[in-house]
Amino acid sequence: MIVKRLAVTGVGLIGGSFALALREAGAVGSIIGIDSDTSNLEQALSLGIIDEIATDARSAVSDADVVFISVPSCSISSVVRDIATALAPGCIVTDGGSVKASIVRECDALIPAGCSFIGGHPIAGTEHSGAAAAFAGLFKGRRCVLTPGAETNASALRTVSRLWSAAGAEVCCMEAEHHDRIFAEISHLPHAVAYALVHAVGTADVEGENVLSYSAGGFKDFTRIASSDPVMWRDIALMNRDALLASIDGFSASLAELRKRIDCGDQTGLTEFFTTAKLFRDGIV
Amino acid sequence: MIVKRLAVTGVGLIGGSFALALREAGAVGSIIGIDSDTSNLEQALSLGIIDEIATDARSAVSDADVVFISVPSCSISSVVRDIATALAPGCIVTDGGSVKASIVRECDALIPAGCSFIGGHPIAGTEHSGAAAAFAGLFKGRRCVLTPGAETNASALRTVSRLWSAAGAEVCCMEAEHHDRIFAEISHLPHAVAYALVHAVGTADVEGENVLSYSAGGFKDFTRIASSDPVMWRDIALMNRDALLASIDGFSASLAELRKRIDCGDQTGLTEFFTTAKLFRDGIV
Repeated sequence: MIVKRLAVTGVGLIGGSFALALREAGAVGSIIGIDSDTSNLEQALSLGIIDEIATDARSAVSDADVVFISVPSCSISSVVRDIATALAPGCIVTDGGSVKASIVRECDALIPAGCSFIGGHPIAGTEHSGAAAAFAGLFKGRRCVLTPGAETNASALRTVSRLWSAAGAEVCCMEAEHHDRIFAEISHLPHAVAYALVHAVGTADVEGENVLSYSAGGFKDFTRIASSDPVMWRDIALMNRDALLASIDGFSASLAELRKRIDCGDQTGLTEFFTTAKLFRDGIV
Repeated sequence: MIVKRLAVTGVGLIGGSFALALREAGAVGSIIGIDSDTSNLEQALSLGIIDEIATDARSAVSDADVVFISVPSCSISSVVRDIATALAPGCIVTDGGSVKASIVRECDALIPAGCSFIGGHPIAGTEHSGAAAAFAGLFKGRRCVLTPGAETNASALRTVSRLWSAAGAEVCCMEAEHHDRIFAEISHLPHAVAYALVHAVGTADVEGENVLSYSAGGFKDFTRIASSDPVMWRDIALMNRDALLASIDGFSASLAELRKRIDCGDQTGLTEFFTTAKLFRDGIV
């Protein structure tokens, strides 16, 4: 057993799967669930994800060794603000938000002395949400990034790292700003591009024709991520603004280069551009 | 039976499926296959896709009522150039290329008087290729665009249209230039964007880190089309250059608008942008 008492705030796909995986690994004693959606909590209880439903967040965390916050990125620091003064000495708070620098900065400032905040980001998910979608194997073989700072308590970091390993994830540590630059490229930029593409094609005026009615499988696959939650992506875009703007500029430069080669009829340059991209893509396992 | 003798040039996924679908519908008498890849032709024969292997393209088309050309878009007009003077009077030549205006212009000029060229583009495909990948149901319920011009022989158009209907497709007719503007938006632009995105992310320098190693399911789905054949997409980009450049510019304007809203921290504007795109995407059946 790694920790006796775990509190999970937000018992959805990520929070619920974390609880299930740790329970299956025998890594936690008891788990209390906190969620603004009561019926989701009742479902989590009946599915055996949690042992207990919290009636109040502050009392729920007061005897927890670790609090895992798995709510939308933009709400994480306000959850920490609410519970900070109710935490037991030595309590470790960690999160699963997909943006890290701003969350870590805000939460570090809120966490009382003697407690620790460790930023985390498990690279896992499905298109489903809620406790009913949770399953113990969600993190198996997936990366979980932790973003300790210079002041981070080493023992708290080790505990969070052991929990994610027990949940099946491969843990890696990096600076929060480094994380945000990587995920601006590999996740936030593709979402921005997908939304912009669907926006452009959807509003394109080709003699009044509904261009989207000609879409085939490729377009559907390519634009699936533009069906993601607009509010969540608004918040991620704003929380990781600087890194995302830099990524958009890098992409725009690539597209401008491609446009130039098409415009010039540069056969060799186009083959080279497409082949380079294909090799990168094929290299993704 | 719609035609007695069909010649298929390029017996791959599209050509082979067209042959199989027409055979299943009882729409053709006999089918002769022409292909630069002899082993592919032998496979097509043994799979019952064709009745006969052509030893020579010109003699193969000399007694055909319809010739279906299903080779890469950039090679279609050179195939027509090779066979034009061998066609029987009244023969109808049609193709399956994904770019239309330049093909129709070139082929119309090559086709002898008394014969007809009808541009076509079946909106169907899979990630597989070759005769072995062909199946009779490929076109079922999918659109097939035909692009007759002002001079097109009405009876020849009717024959090609009946063949595609017999193969299960929903036929629609439009001008070749209109087709190219629509497919610049819905197909060629997404490929250009996918290649540019993978190029940008693959070459992004985030402190020497291999950013692509952090990709999850979303990125893989989003960029699958960047694994397409570079040479094919080079040719499509160049054959539909003007329409594609206009589509790239429209997309760049959408992305610039999104970038501005992120840069300004425009919450309402971002929610509106993402929601509009999501509604377009969700509207695709």
